[in-house]
Amino acid sequence: MGYTELDQKAINSIRVLAADATFNSNSGHPGAPMGMAPVAHVLFNKFMKFNPKNPDWLNRDRFVLSNGHGCMLQYALLHLFGYDLSLDDLKAFRRVDSRTPGHPEAHDTPGIEVTTGPLGQGICNAVGLAIAQAHTAACFNKPDFDLINNYTYCFLGDGCLMEGVSSEASSLAGHLQLGNLIAVWDDNHISIDGNTNVAFTEDVHKRYEAYGWHVVVVDDGDSDLEAIEKALREAQSVTDKPSLIKLKTTIGYGSLNQGTHGVHGSPLKADDIKQLKEKFGFNPEESFAVPQEVYDFYGKHSSEGAAAEEEWNQLLAKYGESYAAEHADLIRRQTGDLPEGWEKALPVYTPADSAIASRKLSETVLSKVESVIPELFGGSADLTGSNLTRWKDAVDFQPKSTGLGDYSGRYVRYGVREHAMGAIMNGLSAYGTILPYSGTFLNFVSYAAGAVRLSALSQVRNIWVATHDSIGLGEDGPTHQPIETLAHFRALPNCMVWRPADGNECSGAYYVALTAKHTPSIIALSRQNLPQLEGSTIEKAAKGGYVLHEVEGADITLISTGSEVAIAVDAAKQLDGQGIKARIVSMPCTEVFDQQDKEYRLSVLPDGIPSLSIEVMTTHGWERYAHEQFGLNRFGASGAYKDVYNKFEFTPEGIAKRAVKTVEFYKGFPVRSPINRAFDQLS
Amino acid sequence: MGYTELDQKAINSIRVLAADATFNSNSGHPGAPMGMAPVAHVLFNKFMKFNPKNPDWLNRDRFVLSNGHGCMLQYALLHLFGYDLSLDDLKAFRRVDSRTPGHPEAHDTPGIEVTTGPLGQGICNAVGLAIAQAHTAACFNKPDFDLINNYTYCFLGDGCLMEGVSSEASSLAGHLQLGNLIAVWDDNHISIDGNTNVAFTEDVHKRYEAYGWHVVVVDDGDSDLEAIEKALREAQSVTDKPSLIKLKTTIGYGSLNQGTHGVHGSPLKADDIKQLKEKFGFNPEESFAVPQEVYDFYGKHSSEGAAAEEEWNQLLAKYGESYAAEHADLIRRQTGDLPEGWEKALPVYTPADSAIASRKLSETVLSKVESVIPELFGGSADLTGSNLTRWKDAVDFQPKSTGLGDYSGRYVRYGVREHAMGAIMNGLSAYGTILPYSGTFLNFVSYAAGAVRLSALSQVRNIWVATHDSIGLGEDGPTHQPIETLAHFRALPNCMVWRPADGNECSGAYYVALTAKHTPSIIALSRQNLPQLEGSTIEKAAKGGYVLHEVEGADITLISTGSEVAIAVDAAKQLDGQGIKARIVSMPCTEVFDQQDKEYRLSVLPDGIPSLSIEVMTTHGWERYAHEQFGLNRFGASGAYKDVYNKFEFTPEGIAKRAVKTVEFYKGFPVRSPINRAFDQLS
Repeated sequence: MGYTELDQKAINSIRVLAADATFNSNSGHPGAPMGMAPVAHVLFNKFMKFNPKNPDWLNRDRFVLSNGHGCMLQYALLHLFGYDLSLDDLKAFRRVDSRTPGHPEAHDTPGIEVTTGPLGQGICNAVGLAIAQAHTAACFNKPDFDLINNYTYCFLGDGCLMEGVSSEASSLAGHLQLGNLIAVWDDNHISIDGNTNVAFTEDVHKRYEAYGWHVVVVDDGDSDLEAIEKALREAQSVTDKPSLIKLKTTIGYGSLNQGTHGVHGSPLKADDIKQLKEKFGFNPEESFAVPQEVYDFYGKHSSEGAAAEEEWNQLLAKYGESYAAEHADLIRRQTGDLPEGWEKALPVYTPADSAIASRKLSETVLSKVESVIPELFGGSADLTGSNLTRWKDAVDFQPKSTGLGDYSGRYVRYGVREHAMGAIMNGLSAYGTILPYSGTFLNFVSYAAGAVRLSALSQVRNIWVATHDSIGLGEDGPTHQPIETLAHFRALPNCMVWRPADGNECSGAYYVALTAKHTPSIIALSRQNLPQLEGSTIEKAAKGGYVLHEVEGADITLISTGSEVAIAVDAAKQLDGQGIKARIVSMPCTEVFDQQDKEYRLSVLPDGIPSLSIEVMTTHGWERYAHEQFGLNRFGASGAYKDVYNKFEFTPEGIAKRAVKTVEFYKGFPVRSPINRAFDQLS
Repeated sequence: MGYTELDQKAINSIRVLAADATFNSNSGHPGAPMGMAPVAHVLFNKFMKFNPKNPDWLNRDRFVLSNGHGCMLQYALLHLFGYDLSLDDLKAFRRVDSRTPGHPEAHDTPGIEVTTGPLGQGICNAVGLAIAQAHTAACFNKPDFDLINNYTYCFLGDGCLMEGVSSEASSLAGHLQLGNLIAVWDDNHISIDGNTNVAFTEDVHKRYEAYGWHVVVVDDGDSDLEAIEKALREAQSVTDKPSLIKLKTTIGYGSLNQGTHGVHGSPLKADDIKQLKEKFGFNPEESFAVPQEVYDFYGKHSSEGAAAEEEWNQLLAKYGESYAAEHADLIRRQTGDLPEGWEKALPVYTPADSAIASRKLSETVLSKVESVIPELFGGSADLTGSNLTRWKDAVDFQPKSTGLGDYSGRYVRYGVREHAMGAIMNGLSAYGTILPYSGTFLNFVSYAAGAVRLSALSQVRNIWVATHDSIGLGEDGPTHQPIETLAHFRALPNCMVWRPADGNECSGAYYVALTAKHTPSIIALSRQNLPQLEGSTIEKAAKGGYVLHEVEGADITLISTGSEVAIAVDAAKQLDGQGIKARIVSMPCTEVFDQQDKEYRLSVLPDGIPSLSIEVMTTHGWERYAHEQFGLNRFGASGAYKDVYNKFEFTPEGIAKRAVKTVEFYKGFPVRSPINRAFDQLS
């Protein structure tokens, strides 16, 4: 309360900067920044706790711009509050190699928490950040040590509310009673198609109440700063529900075209900017000109933030004296390093061990490592008993009042909400103290494609436990049997796709996935039992591809993954009887194999003999590793898994037949390893 | 009303059949069929209008089982009402090559309207079917000819309601005031993880009211048939809102484990089935035994359906006398054939024509063909002005009361709801009178991956107008620039991915997409301008790949798509100056190219010289067509499109450099065309 002209000047500085930057780059979205400048001002300057000199301070309040196209708002704020983002950075908005890309990217810009832009994702990330806060607080706070108590704030637009992924996450956030989450809906009635009444006439207020949220309405978000502040305080006061502030604003406030979609996705015209600056008392001849008093005003809040961090650091140090182990754990978690020696917990197998489904092997890994990796934080999209993602005696992450668990619990019941699960994991990872994994059927990771893409782009360590990974799931049939899924995610940069063939490979997959600080993983796991292979080790598997079975004077290399490796081994035996010597390569992760040096890769896939890939799904992409490919370039079939495998000839006989054809085809023909290329394709 | 013991016997016959079939196949979901048998009985026997002898009757009521795992319910009903589905078919439930797969598939089983199972999809398909009905009625009904007046009914479970895709479609259905849509929510409080209260405690009733639906509650869905009937009648009476019937049921009703998740996804035990049959008055020693009176009971309703169709056929014939053109149009539409000569409307270009963005070329195609293909029915996910999907003077499909259009309109404002848009298109196509296309950015087709997969599996003719198809979109940056997207959908069976390079190829892409009755298409289109190429024609493009530029004694084949083809042409000129002769292949659609005969394919990609693919996204999969690949196996960058292309060397120089390396690498090495393979990989 007690707002002065300086507040208004600060707000208008944000608006003018947004207009200048989009005009300067002739690209971008001025409307949302200009409309949301008032709430941003009040939130950042009166509520948010942060230190621009240390954007990584653990207990900072988190801010997520779910309507990421309005990122000039966020860039302007970061600049004005003194983050390491200069006016020159703002002038380079949307230019190649700038730190101010067209949508906010967590790894490009200090102060950006998560990568947003694809609509609906940010609010889900915010739910993840809020879960992470609640969980970290439950694990580490102690009497007299309210160490972790930050809020997560999120701005979102109509588009975010239309996307189903936000519905999923919002329903879950209501169920989880995340009182630390405060979202502000920019209710400006404008989207790219014009007035939202062409497609979006639902009662959002009522819908969010139905989810169990607290909803506050601000009728004049353009200028009633008192009302905005009051709404935010009210939201903070409701501790057992997330809050949605329905903030009525005028998009592009100040522009001649304010309130229309003309200001949504296009810069203002020169004369429009001129009148805007005149109206707001700025010099119309100047661009990127920020009044010093605005810098000073915001600088004061930043200094207070720095002081707050300093105070918190002292609290943390004291905490360390009383709770040395917790303190060490909290510090370690933030480095991304796992506890020393954790990998000794990984199970190791010998061929004498029985055949086990790899989803079950995965369960064993999780059950063994959960106690040594306390940041491991699991969940499933309503398939817990099928994905086998919940270790025995795991506690659910639930509000205490449900009687089903508490916030220190490490297992989230995501419900049938794969896409939100993926987007929430991105937020969990971004918080800094949690290593999330979640389960669903491999086929339904595709529902979350939008979120997985952002995991890869924003370089977070999420793990998908993707069971029922092929036609081997059997009776559920083609609607559930992945064909294109592995190819899809293998084609995605910075995403590891694992398909372990046995217990050691499963441990190897987890080893790499858990230690890859900047890469998400999808671990594809079988429903059916798989034998323990002769020749597999964790170390070999961790190279992504290796020779499982070498043979002198080989005629062919059989390259396979997951459940097909054992069948390929049997095929090699059959081929031996036919006078063909086949060596076997197991390739649980092509992305990791690609990272090995060339000498190693050539030792696995040598010159001189042809190779045949065997994987019971699309062959798309296998041409990179094998001269010939045996796969399934059609949809599967509903039936007992062995019947389905037989139908499509994924049997020792079916493989051997194709191996013979491959050997014949290349007979007398010089064969170069697919590793040898004219130039590097991977850049 | 007036229910008798025969009704109960019929209901219990359904329950017992579901228990028998899942037990017999030792797989499947008995719980939902047993719980929903009463409402299914009332709906099918008292409300639904259908003729089992002609499942394709246009004006039949549509039924969608969104919780598709309960398909034994639907199979049992189809059998009992006399569809071409025998007891032997039920006995073959979930067996390879049966007509009763683990989830309902539209093309496998007479009477199945749409392919469901992946949760949330069916209710969206139902929204599509309801839109299609409303639109077809608005176009064809006349005074005295209420020709098209069917309802769409949908059963859905908790899982469907948790999925975001259903939220999107439900919000839109409310906005569109689809009074012809009646959904029944199986409110049984059980999902795979157990009681839904672990994850799903929102107020669904209130949420659907917020969407603008009419909600009716039935407290006892297990046995109160009168209440069920009353609820359905009430839903029918509300003509300007879709209805949701909240039907409280007991999952697995009759089982010893009724009301628990134990009956959700596993067959009942033998002794449980025994007591079930005894309780219901069935012979516990018999399986698959249906009382004749139940057949007779249902047979009567089926006969009435057949009579209703006969009456309708007479009405249609009379309609033809008064409205010959409309009659002919309606008949033709159902065949899937387009009006004769429609293709003459496709625009043709010469190299003298100016450079045009392919999204703009697409707009021209749509604008030219819309008047000759009246079933063309468009839309966009809130990107109309960017996707250019709306022809001038198009009328929006909107309820009249909005003042924004009417149901005869052919353009849907889907809002920012890509996934629902895809799933709704599946329903639109399934109705039989509509050819849907819809626009979004290519990158966000991924949000709809779950629906696109079902388009391909269920063989419908949907068209995605996927603009902003590469880093060429420029400033929006990596969050919006597709890298993996084309590879993903190329790996999906029965899905055409088109990336036209100029105007003629754009017309060719639409030609094939519009005439492919059983295959969905994704047409990837540029934001930036593309020159009209020398050598392109519609006919050549329609082969999927062709020689754009042939040269005697070529050293290399450059294979490219879309916006990179023209750059490759310039690269060839540069190479010519360096003494290297390069021929150019344009490959707008690999799937269609694969369908050409081998001789043709070898003429395009001949033996003897190496080839280099050029596409500004992942190289994944290009190894199938080219010896070497130039692509972008990383995320893009935010900046002006030419700067971004330069950054990644997608320039004539960058291509020429790699072509030189390719030629050198293969010098003196015998080169086989990638078309020549040891065996057929595509089966």
